[in-house]
Amino acid sequence: MKRLILLGASGSIGTQTLDVIRMHPDKFMLTAFGVGRNIDMFRRIQAEFPVSEATVEREEDAVLLRQEYPHMTILSGEEGMCSLAERRDYDILVNALVGFAGFLPTWHAIRSDHDVALANKETLVVGGELIDQALREHGRKLLPIDSEHSAIFQCLQGNQTSQVKRLIITASGGSFRRLSRDELRDVTVEQALAHPNWNMGAKITIDSATMMNKGFEVMEAHWLFGLPYEQIDVLMHPESIVHSMVEYRDHSVMAQLGNPDMRLPIQYALSWPDRFELEQEKPLDLAAVGSLHFSAPDTRRYPLLGLAYETAKKGGTLPAVLNGANEVANLAFREKEISFLDIEDILVRAVFRAGKKEVHDVQDLLDADAWGRGYADYLIRGTKQ
Amino acid sequence: MKRLILLGASGSIGTQTLDVIRMHPDKFMLTAFGVGRNIDMFRRIQAEFPVSEATVEREEDAVLLRQEYPHMTILSGEEGMCSLAERRDYDILVNALVGFAGFLPTWHAIRSDHDVALANKETLVVGGELIDQALREHGRKLLPIDSEHSAIFQCLQGNQTSQVKRLIITASGGSFRRLSRDELRDVTVEQALAHPNWNMGAKITIDSATMMNKGFEVMEAHWLFGLPYEQIDVLMHPESIVHSMVEYRDHSVMAQLGNPDMRLPIQYALSWPDRFELEQEKPLDLAAVGSLHFSAPDTRRYPLLGLAYETAKKGGTLPAVLNGANEVANLAFREKEISFLDIEDILVRAVFRAGKKEVHDVQDLLDADAWGRGYADYLIRGTKQ
Repeated sequence: MKRLILLGASGSIGTQTLDVIRMHPDKFMLTAFGVGRNIDMFRRIQAEFPVSEATVEREEDAVLLRQEYPHMTILSGEEGMCSLAERRDYDILVNALVGFAGFLPTWHAIRSDHDVALANKETLVVGGELIDQALREHGRKLLPIDSEHSAIFQCLQGNQTSQVKRLIITASGGSFRRLSRDELRDVTVEQALAHPNWNMGAKITIDSATMMNKGFEVMEAHWLFGLPYEQIDVLMHPESIVHSMVEYRDHSVMAQLGNPDMRLPIQYALSWPDRFELEQEKPLDLAAVGSLHFSAPDTRRYPLLGLAYETAKKGGTLPAVLNGANEVANLAFREKEISFLDIEDILVRAVFRAGKKEVHDVQDLLDADAWGRGYADYLIRGTKQ
Repeated sequence: MKRLILLGASGSIGTQTLDVIRMHPDKFMLTAFGVGRNIDMFRRIQAEFPVSEATVEREEDAVLLRQEYPHMTILSGEEGMCSLAERRDYDILVNALVGFAGFLPTWHAIRSDHDVALANKETLVVGGELIDQALREHGRKLLPIDSEHSAIFQCLQGNQTSQVKRLIITASGGSFRRLSRDELRDVTVEQALAHPNWNMGAKITIDSATMMNKGFEVMEAHWLFGLPYEQIDVLMHPESIVHSMVEYRDHSVMAQLGNPDMRLPIQYALSWPDRFELEQEKPLDLAAVGSLHFSAPDTRRYPLLGLAYETAKKGGTLPAVLNGANEVANLAFREKEISFLDIEDILVRAVFRAGKKEVHDVQDLLDADAWGRGYADYLIRGTKQ
């Protein structure tokens, strides 16, 4: 029986994690959970998977819930999440948070000697260096939940990273993959949110359309698998059936395929090295799919992919700046304050303007994140005038 | 340093095995070898990889070679091959023989406590039951060299067969995959020998065109990986880039890809669980390939695939009959004694006519093989009248 703490329980990955727990009540047990502002979801989770401790985003919601659930410990805010992550009595933290907010709980879980199943790629984009160091010091593991990284993780089983020639991360190209750059000028949030293959949260769907998400995945792969950026490639694959690949030094290429269903990588992160049954309405039928397509990414079409590589190679605090600015720009687009192409412009300018510093501690990351957010805010105010 | 004995050294797999040894002189050493009637090849191998013992098909060639190489022990015939297989001083037998002739050396190698890298699928088609038993008794391994089985073997690394839902063996469809059954009536040997993707020996290229080869691969997979025939599927894939796949119980599908190059599975069988460098002129570039196609096999178009499943499920001596009859019919087609479609007709009739017996010992296999050959001969004489 694996005891889980789930943060981000009301989101897309969170609810699918609950589904995995629901399918395997003999294998997984929820020990504690955290949600954001969705208090109704809090009640439903607690009704189905009763726990003694949970956390919510706002203290005002916690006050209310403490009256409703007098026997529970109900925390709030960043402190609440970190406090859960530091508990002793669980086996793995499932981090399904969105954005840099996911960093600190991961950090505290590792330093309290826990493994983390990570859906929150920003943790590694921003704080890869510190997380990597903490993992070594505490002998803990990160189990990837992102479908691409789960694919690579599966392709690496029974092999060693020293035998790897390169990782090949596949990319659908997002909602606008059929549009030219000219046609991107007037796209709307609604169009951007209609991803062709995956049903994901809003933030990541926009990040997919700009390919910022793919750039972050390159960084995530770098930290998860310990390979230099020269050995991490991106390959366009519109069907999202091949979730990613590993090419070995004997030129054998291992690939992981499946119909888009995030429950698979979530479950694998929790069942590894075992595999459990997973009922699917429609398992992959390649004869029905008929054909799979592949092409090289066009970095002029997707400039943020090139920016991600550049920023990642420079390293230091620059990825934190890029991520902070992206969180602000992504939200501003969703709130219709800026256009789709403004996102790219803001990120290029933020990274260009930022001074690179080395990362010595968490404070350096918080500072860089704040600077990235602040500078993006400043640029957004500029576009609105 | 792994010490190898190579049987079938002058054939397609044999020469590519020598190429692998040549690339890794620090890792592999040739201890002994066997060739058929290609005496010139014997001389060239001995010049490059000098050994103290070797074997050839015919005693008359052995007599000649003993004079030329007075310090070598030179054997001949089936006995010669079995005698090499029984040596103590080597680590792995590479069986690159063609046809049922490959069975006895495998059998003797395992019973002398050796692992076998197996390119000879007829060994398992005919004698799977006995080989399986010998492997268990002697705690030895078969390492697959067939590209499909190597792919499956690679996809199984880090997983357990108890987690497997099904094996998916890919099939190019062979030289005539674009022809209808009507168009198959007048095809020639020369057309059949022009395989679109692989450059292989003559016998296996004809077996690919009839799909008898794929049927044999299904049986080989059954014995290699210990799964029932209901869990082994065939999927048409004309590009021969995805060499085969494994679907797990969580519906994750692992695939192994690469440009057609038999040196990869040969090397993997010898390097496993490690992977060594393998220089390729043209490693797989999926962006350049552009698209991969898949479809369900049409058993009316390829009746021998259906016959193989049927024969395999009935088991006993019937696969030996099928293989014996196929070796004769395949050769008769290559020698222009019968037409392409006659092959199918002969095999269907041979299996239908044969009485199924249980396999108790090697003699049962030899008898069934002889019966299959005899009956095919009889039918061939009939078609010629």
